[in-house]
Amino acid sequence: MAAFSSPSADILWSLTHVANAARVEHFDAEMTGEILEHFASFAQGVLAPIDEQGDAQGCRMEAGRVLMPDGYKAAFDQLIEGGWQGLTAPDNFGGMDMNHLTQAAVSEVFSGANHALQMICNLVPGAISTLLKFGTEAQQTQWIPQLASGDVLSTMCLTESGAGSDLSKLRTKARKHGDHWRIEGEKIFISGGDQNLSNGILHLVLARSGDVADGVKGLSLFLAPSDVNGSPNAITVTRIEEKLGLHASPTCQMSFDGAQAELIGAEVEGLKAMFTMMNHARLDVSLQGIAHAARAHDIAKTYANDRKQGRKADGSDAVLSDHADVQRMLETQDSLALGARAMAHIAIVEMELGMRPELVEFLTPICKVFCTESGITAADLGIQVLGGYGYLTEYRVSQTWRDARITSIYEGANGIHAASLAGRGLCGRGADDFAQLIIELDQEGALAPHLKDWQNARDHVVGLDDPSSVAHEFMQLSSDLFFRAVWCKIARVASTHDDPTRILTLAERIKKRPVPVALPL
Amino acid sequence: MAAFSSPSADILWSLTHVANAARVEHFDAEMTGEILEHFASFAQGVLAPIDEQGDAQGCRMEAGRVLMPDGYKAAFDQLIEGGWQGLTAPDNFGGMDMNHLTQAAVSEVFSGANHALQMICNLVPGAISTLLKFGTEAQQTQWIPQLASGDVLSTMCLTESGAGSDLSKLRTKARKHGDHWRIEGEKIFISGGDQNLSNGILHLVLARSGDVADGVKGLSLFLAPSDVNGSPNAITVTRIEEKLGLHASPTCQMSFDGAQAELIGAEVEGLKAMFTMMNHARLDVSLQGIAHAARAHDIAKTYANDRKQGRKADGSDAVLSDHADVQRMLETQDSLALGARAMAHIAIVEMELGMRPELVEFLTPICKVFCTESGITAADLGIQVLGGYGYLTEYRVSQTWRDARITSIYEGANGIHAASLAGRGLCGRGADDFAQLIIELDQEGALAPHLKDWQNARDHVVGLDDPSSVAHEFMQLSSDLFFRAVWCKIARVASTHDDPTRILTLAERIKKRPVPVALPL
Repeated sequence: MAAFSSPSADILWSLTHVANAARVEHFDAEMTGEILEHFASFAQGVLAPIDEQGDAQGCRMEAGRVLMPDGYKAAFDQLIEGGWQGLTAPDNFGGMDMNHLTQAAVSEVFSGANHALQMICNLVPGAISTLLKFGTEAQQTQWIPQLASGDVLSTMCLTESGAGSDLSKLRTKARKHGDHWRIEGEKIFISGGDQNLSNGILHLVLARSGDVADGVKGLSLFLAPSDVNGSPNAITVTRIEEKLGLHASPTCQMSFDGAQAELIGAEVEGLKAMFTMMNHARLDVSLQGIAHAARAHDIAKTYANDRKQGRKADGSDAVLSDHADVQRMLETQDSLALGARAMAHIAIVEMELGMRPELVEFLTPICKVFCTESGITAADLGIQVLGGYGYLTEYRVSQTWRDARITSIYEGANGIHAASLAGRGLCGRGADDFAQLIIELDQEGALAPHLKDWQNARDHVVGLDDPSSVAHEFMQLSSDLFFRAVWCKIARVASTHDDPTRILTLAERIKKRPVPVALPL
Repeated sequence: MAAFSSPSADILWSLTHVANAARVEHFDAEMTGEILEHFASFAQGVLAPIDEQGDAQGCRMEAGRVLMPDGYKAAFDQLIEGGWQGLTAPDNFGGMDMNHLTQAAVSEVFSGANHALQMICNLVPGAISTLLKFGTEAQQTQWIPQLASGDVLSTMCLTESGAGSDLSKLRTKARKHGDHWRIEGEKIFISGGDQNLSNGILHLVLARSGDVADGVKGLSLFLAPSDVNGSPNAITVTRIEEKLGLHASPTCQMSFDGAQAELIGAEVEGLKAMFTMMNHARLDVSLQGIAHAARAHDIAKTYANDRKQGRKADGSDAVLSDHADVQRMLETQDSLALGARAMAHIAIVEMELGMRPELVEFLTPICKVFCTESGITAADLGIQVLGGYGYLTEYRVSQTWRDARITSIYEGANGIHAASLAGRGLCGRGADDFAQLIIELDQEGALAPHLKDWQNARDHVVGLDDPSSVAHEFMQLSSDLFFRAVWCKIARVASTHDDPTRILTLAERIKKRPVPVALPL
C-alpha cells in the first residue's frame, strides 16, 4: 500500500499557472511553496501514519467525555506547536496572517493525510473569520488568540433532529439572563462536539432567541464555550454516532441544558453570521473531495504500476497499468483530481480578488458538488483498479471511499446546492460572469457549442416556475462545462508542468467525455 | 429503518410479463409464485434479521476453523430443512427439480435479505450443474444428494495470489497418486473456504496437472472434499480477509498440502468445466446486484415517505419524497432495479429456451456489468437520499453499498467482461442476435437512432486491432441500449402491473437518460 504522498507540486502548479494566483495581492508563490513543503512533510510523517489506526479504533466515550484514537493527541500537539491552527489568523492575534490560497493548499494536504483530524481542526479558520466579521473587540481578543494557538478548537452547532437541511425548523432556544444568554436544546451531527485534543472548545451555536415567529428569522448565533470560569458549561455529549467512515472524527449528539453563551453579531441575524462559517466550510469540503481524488489516484497508480498482470502484445509480462481499461480508470481519476483542484483554486482566487463576488457565489456550489463527487468517483475507481485487493481493508482505498462519501452530504447535501444554483443562483449576474469565465478559460472557442447548450439550458431554467425539477441536470451541466473549461486552460499551460505529456494525455481524454445530461433540458 | 421486504410481486411480474417466461417448458407461473412467496416469508423472517448482526460481528477463526456470526448456523439449518439447497437438483438426487427461473427468483430474494449467507450457499447450484455435466455417475451419486440436502456446501477454488484475472498464471499443482490425486498450492479469495454451517465442504479446485507448458491448457478441475473417510483432508484456512463489506461471508486464504482429490471431467480440460460454474456464478452475481438495487430503493423510499422536510408550494408540511431531487433519486433507483431485473430475466429465459446460445453468451457479460453497477449506483443514491442518516451504520443502507460493492469485482471484474464483449463477443452471431432482440423489445422503433449508433460503434470496434481500448465504452453503450430496450417492453406491458402509474412514470424518466459515452466511439 502506498504511503500518503502529498501532491504538493501539482497544487502549487495549479495555484500559480492555472489559477494565476499572482494576481492576488500578497500572494507569494515561493513562500506558499515553502510553507506547503513544510506542512507536507509534517502531514506525511505525522498525520498520515495515524490515519489507518484512527479508522480502525474510532472514537469512544468514557465518563461523559469523548476520547480520540491513540496517537491523535500527540499529533495535534505537534500540529499546534507548528502554529498551523493560526495560519490565516491576523498576526496581532498570534496568527501567521496567510491568505486563503495558502490555507487551501495546506487544507488539501491535511485532508489527504487525515480527513478525520482535518475536519475537527479546520472549523477554526471559519470561526476566526466569523469573529473578525461579527464579534466584538472583547470577543476577538478573548478567542482568536486561543483558536490560533490551538488551545481551543471550535464547532458549528447547527443541525437538529428533524431539521436537517431546513433551518426554519430549529427548536434550540436562547433566553437572556442578565448580561448573558442561556441555551436549551439538542443538536445532532456535531463534528468534534467533544474531544481530548484541545484544552477548550468554542461552540458556535445557532438558536432561536426571543419568542419570535417560526422560520429562519428568529435565529441568532451564539458563542458557548465548553468551560466558563474554570467550570464545565452545561453542554453534554449524549452519544457519538456509528458511521460508514471518518471513524476518528467524533460525530456528536449534544445537549445544551441552560448552557451559558454570548450573542455574536446582532440578534436574529444568526444566519448571516453562520453563512460566513458555512462558506468557509463549503470550500473546505471541496478541498477534501480533491484530496481524496488525488489520494485514490496515488494508491491506484502505485499499485497498478507494480502489479504484474497478463502480457503485452509482444508477449512480455505486463503490469496492471498497461491494460487499456486500467489506464482509463487511472486517467479518469487523475483528470478529476487536477480539474476539480483547478476549479476550486480559480474560485478561491476570485474570492481573494473580490472583483466578482456574484461569480464566487455562483462557483461555490458548483465546486462543492463537482469536487466532492470527483473524490467519491475517484475513490470508487481506485477500488475497481485494485480489484479484490481494493475490497480489502488492508489496501486502504476503501477507507478513502468511506471517508470521501460524507462530502456530498455534509455542509449542504449536493441536491440542496443544485437547487440553490438553479433558483437564487440564476437571479443575479453570477451566471453572466460564469459564462464570461468560461470564455476566458476556453480562449480558443473550443467549448462554444457546450456554452451554447448551457445558455439554452439556463434560459429554460430561468423560465420555469419550479426550477428544482431540473436542478440536478442544470448543476451537472454547469459543473461539466466548468470542468471542460478548466481543462482548456490546463492544456494551454501544460508546458509549464513538470510532466507535460501527462497533462496533454489527460486533456485528450476530456474531449471524449460524454455530456452528463440529455439535452435539451 | 425499513425491515427487508421481498419484491416478490415485481419479480414474478418481470418473469411472466416482461420476460415471457411462459415460453419456457415446465415453467409454471403459479407454482413459481407459491415457491417465491414461501421463500420470501422465510427470507424476511429468518435470513434478513441476522444480516445486520452478521455484518457487525463478522466471521472469526478459532483453532484453525472458521466460525460464522451468531445465528447463522440456526438459519442455515432452517434453510436446508426447507429443502432450499436442492431447489434445482434433479429429484432422483433428492432435489426439487425446479428450473433456473424459479431459482433466479429465489436467489434474488436471498441476496436482498442476506447477501453474505447467500453467496456461501449459492455456489451449490453451479457445483451440481458441473457434476451433472462432467462428473462420473459415482461422483454424481456421492455428491449431489449431499449438496441438495445441505449436508455439504461447495466452493470455487480458482484465484491465486498473482493470478487474479489471469488463469494462465495459476501455480497450484495436482499429482497422481494411484487412483487419486494430491493437490499442492495456495488459493486466495475463497468464499466460504471454511464455515461451521454444513457438515462437509466440497471444494472444486482448478489446478495444474502434469508437467504441461504454462498457460491455461494445463489446468484440470478437481473435487477435494474437506474430509476423506472421516478424517480431515490436508486443506487449511490460513487466514480470513478483512473486507469493506460482506463481513458474514468468510473470504479465505487456503493451503492445499497434498490434499486428496478426484479429477472431474477430462484432464487438462479444467477450464471448460470451470466455466459451467462461472456462468452460473455470473448470472447469480447479476441477481445480487438487482437485489441490492431493490433493497436500497426500498430503504430510501420508506425513509423519504416518512421523513418530514420543508414545505410544499401551498405551505403545508412536506416529506422528503415530495422534493424533486429526492424523487429523481428514488425513481432512478427503481428504474435501475426493474430494468436490470428485466435484463437478467430475459437472459435467463433465453438460456432456458436454448434457441440462441450465442445471444445468451452475449447477454451474460452485459447483465453482469449492468446489474452490478445498478446495485452499486442505487445503494449510493440510497445513502444520498438519507443524507446524514445514510452515513450512519444504523440505517443500514451503507451496508447495502458495502456489500454491493464487491459485485463489480468478483466473478470477473467488470472491465474483463467489457474486454471479452468487445473482443470474442463480437466475433460470433451473438451481436446480430442482440440487435434482433433490441428490435423485438422495442417494437415501435423508438430506439432506432440508438440502435444505429450502437451498430456504428460495433462496426468500429470490429475493425480495431485492439478493441480493449474502447471496451469500456462499448460495454456502456451496449448495456445502455439493452436497458432502454427492456424499458420499452416494460412500458408496453405496464397495464399488467399492479401500479401502472409507477411503471409509466419511470419509463418517461428513461427517455431523459443521457447516453453514457461520447459518440462516435
